[in-house]
Amino acid sequence: MRLTRFTDYSLRVLIYLGQNNDSRVTINQISQDYDISKNHLMKVVSNLTRWKFVAAQRGPGGGIQLNRPAEEINLGEVISVTEKYLRELDVPGSHDADQLNADSRLSVFLHHALQAYLETLDCFTLADVLKPNSEAHKLVQLNVEVA
Amino acid sequence: MRLTRFTDYSLRVLIYLGQNNDSRVTINQISQDYDISKNHLMKVVSNLTRWKFVAAQRGPGGGIQLNRPAEEINLGEVISVTEKYLRELDVPGSHDADQLNADSRLSVFLHHALQAYLETLDCFTLADVLKPNSEAHKLVQLNVEVA
Repeated sequence: MRLTRFTDYSLRVLIYLGQNNDSRVTINQISQDYDISKNHLMKVVSNLTRWKFVAAQRGPGGGIQLNRPAEEINLGEVISVTEKYLRELDVPGSHDADQLNADSRLSVFLHHALQAYLETLDCFTLADVLKPNSEAHKLVQLNVEVA
Repeated sequence: MRLTRFTDYSLRVLIYLGQNNDSRVTINQISQDYDISKNHLMKVVSNLTRWKFVAAQRGPGGGIQLNRPAEEINLGEVISVTEKYLRELDVPGSHDADQLNADSRLSVFLHHALQAYLETLDCFTLADVLKPNSEAHKLVQLNVEVA
């Protein structure tokens, strides 16, 4: 149930880019500021670029920046691609639980719980992470109080 | 986001015991039937016993069995203890997201999603995994159709 290091680094890179959105930043900068190895970051950034969360420009004066506004980068969307397990998830073919054996029924229930996890993250964007006073925060506070 | 092997084995042991609830079973039996190493299983069963999901009796004629009816073994409860990460989860001290920095706000949102995951699993018991035609299955089918 723990997020992978790859997801952790992906989220940190997005936060960093969101906080420095007025300029292109380099992988070197992020590596130094977060004390994360450049090799790890290159793999992370390469994938974030492939998934269109990040835009990269090569050459002098180049660097990376967010590919869309932080308001349009959804946490559920990010995690559903950065977590390899979720991308490869084998959803049980039949959802008619009565027809399944115990192992498959368990898979259906676990899959159902994962959906609830991702649907909750779908309520939050990178902008909610970056900025206080958003509607999302009020939602969280409300739910925590009610729970 | 993937469950650990420890949780996977714990759930399999509980399913096995639920399916053989009229007799005590031995770790040897489970090891042979599931092709899981005896050493792994001993650690799993020792913890399931400590957490009161399983009752163990030593000596000749001894073995293990469920410590309560399958209807009272809740999947959310099982996973919240078998996943070491969840037991050790450092819940952000303040839930007032406006007062936090970006990293802590992200932690609050992720924690919120984990709660949704566990709350969904709280709807299902070991009995739902073992038996078709429960209310829980109807719930899942309904939600899948609506989604």
